[in-house]
Amino acid sequence: MKKYVSELLMIPGPTPVPSQVALAGAQNMMSHRSGPFKKLMLDLTAQLQALLQTNNEVVILSSSGTGGMEAVVSSCFAKGDKVLVATVGNFGKRWVKLAKVYGLDTEVLEYDYGQAVDPSAVKALLANDTEKKIKGVFFQMNETSTAVLNDVEEIAKVVKAHGALVIVDAISGFLASDLKIDEWGLDVVITGSQKAFMLPPGLAVVAVSARAKKAMEASDLPHFYLSLPAALKQAAEGQTPYTPAVSLIYQLSTAVKILTDEGLESILARHERLTQAVRSALRSLGMRLLNENDKTASRAVTAVYPPDGLNADEIRQRMKDDWGITLSNGQDELKGKIFRIGHLGHIDPKDVLAVIACLEIVLSQLGMPGIQWGKGVQAAQNVLARK
Amino acid sequence: MKKYVSELLMIPGPTPVPSQVALAGAQNMMSHRSGPFKKLMLDLTAQLQALLQTNNEVVILSSSGTGGMEAVVSSCFAKGDKVLVATVGNFGKRWVKLAKVYGLDTEVLEYDYGQAVDPSAVKALLANDTEKKIKGVFFQMNETSTAVLNDVEEIAKVVKAHGALVIVDAISGFLASDLKIDEWGLDVVITGSQKAFMLPPGLAVVAVSARAKKAMEASDLPHFYLSLPAALKQAAEGQTPYTPAVSLIYQLSTAVKILTDEGLESILARHERLTQAVRSALRSLGMRLLNENDKTASRAVTAVYPPDGLNADEIRQRMKDDWGITLSNGQDELKGKIFRIGHLGHIDPKDVLAVIACLEIVLSQLGMPGIQWGKGVQAAQNVLARK
Repeated sequence: MKKYVSELLMIPGPTPVPSQVALAGAQNMMSHRSGPFKKLMLDLTAQLQALLQTNNEVVILSSSGTGGMEAVVSSCFAKGDKVLVATVGNFGKRWVKLAKVYGLDTEVLEYDYGQAVDPSAVKALLANDTEKKIKGVFFQMNETSTAVLNDVEEIAKVVKAHGALVIVDAISGFLASDLKIDEWGLDVVITGSQKAFMLPPGLAVVAVSARAKKAMEASDLPHFYLSLPAALKQAAEGQTPYTPAVSLIYQLSTAVKILTDEGLESILARHERLTQAVRSALRSLGMRLLNENDKTASRAVTAVYPPDGLNADEIRQRMKDDWGITLSNGQDELKGKIFRIGHLGHIDPKDVLAVIACLEIVLSQLGMPGIQWGKGVQAAQNVLARK
Repeated sequence: MKKYVSELLMIPGPTPVPSQVALAGAQNMMSHRSGPFKKLMLDLTAQLQALLQTNNEVVILSSSGTGGMEAVVSSCFAKGDKVLVATVGNFGKRWVKLAKVYGLDTEVLEYDYGQAVDPSAVKALLANDTEKKIKGVFFQMNETSTAVLNDVEEIAKVVKAHGALVIVDAISGFLASDLKIDEWGLDVVITGSQKAFMLPPGLAVVAVSARAKKAMEASDLPHFYLSLPAALKQAAEGQTPYTPAVSLIYQLSTAVKILTDEGLESILARHERLTQAVRSALRSLGMRLLNENDKTASRAVTAVYPPDGLNADEIRQRMKDDWGITLSNGQDELKGKIFRIGHLGHIDPKDVLAVIACLEIVLSQLGMPGIQWGKGVQAAQNVLARK
């Protein structure tokens, strides 16, 4: 006898893929050097620019988001260039690793888990760089590992005043929160397909400013498959330097149509609503969030400590075994110490209501005292019922 | 701006199709006269017999369940044959219509909406038939329109004592509740693909006893596409008289594997659990069920009256518009007076928890006084949390 349970993926990526998008990947292959494919790519790129709120050039790399991050490092900088990484978690550390792999002179501004980058600290640090040696500042829009949203606009402001390139990993943050690339003057922005795009993993969409493009001319770092200049050159013709992941391009095209049809305002509003519902529900159950600051709260994922005496891994295991709900572990030093609830992409209020109701049961069955079933759900209902 | 909401189909059919089953329908077409297709059909039929708890012959008709009902009427009876229909709702009336279309002398035992067939009333009626003119007794296992489960075993017992054929429409009841075809001596049982089978509509699976087969010899009613004798003859060779719905057969094969893997005990237990959760939640909210009898409660669907002063159609509309949840209307005279929540097939506890949480919000937003959010959810949690 096998237990029958529907699977619900509530992790910060890969996120659930709507059937419409999943089926789009089953369309017949076409030549990526054909006219119809070029048209598909040009149309898609224009729609991506609208969603990204930018007139900057946009390329689609057939790699995960990390490939997009590497592309920027290896394409926009030269050996020995000084850069600053402001990191608030595991993905910030990835910027550091990448910069070091390519021999960049890397200064690191590091924050405790759950904290956001303080723009004034970036400002102070850059003020010391009177010789303007720092060529780029790297940070995350949304740090997935700690569920923290950075103030991209404010950080960009101080970086631009200094003159360095503003490089933003927006992989998990894009569409969950607002991101005004042109208005805020972001030089390179990287997104990934398996987040709010509602696609399987495999594509990175990168928006590149004229300043970033200019910086590429001085780059002497090795790059080939992940070359941004090569991608930019080909993208102008609706092409890619190497064979693109055709089925994922089909799916991106379908997803972008759905998202465009919905509109940015609604997309952002629903991520905001789900975030508030999850946070309110967890708090009403007496749980402690890794990031208690509502302003810097990630709109893509919420990280929470288990109640005293309970084990985070056990909670996740029971959620999976009993209710078919997959939640995320913490990363690095937070492994086993927190769990994370993803609420981005193709996740809706019904999913949040169900996950809270199931969590209430699991928590009390694992021995959390005084938990009243329906209380967390009620807190979520209070948020979600608002018109 | 278009509201983005996931669709949740909580109606008593078509039910949600799991992606595994949906994708099975996309397999390459094969010749329905080929060896591999014959093998597929023979394997499938054997697995269906196990799920149906019968050694009777089983045929798969490429029609909806109604086609299966018509097949029995036109194949097993002769013009002017006397039959008895025990009806408790809209689908019972369909038996009456079918019997009349084919010129059968039809006696009707009719019950009020929400009531089940009383086996002793059937017994009394058959006792009057001293000349044994009644050749068959037709009824529903589960009356979808009123959410009533008949006591198939008891009804069959009194019919068998009389000698008439026991003809059971188990379209919406099969797999939601127990059905022991051989043990209870059911002569013809009809099921449909779009219910607990978790398939799209389009197939009817019919189990036929030796007695029913014998009765076919005397039939003089016109039948061709829906001919049971023709289907039975071909089924022995893994064939169908006419072209079968090949993609649906693929899907049925996949679904039956999933169901067999789960096991009948678990399938029945989860339908029981969801039924209790829904009924308990609705009652805790002070709502009145069309059928308050827990013993005769349908394990596939629950019919409920709107609270005083509220409009059932408006509730359904709001559930759809605000939360993406489709519920069913009443049928016939119950149209607009009740609504129905389907909980069969690929529906799981998370769906029930979400539908109750959303219903709480809708009811109070439409003006139901004194409704406490989370209370209905808690009642459902109390049922669903039981191990």
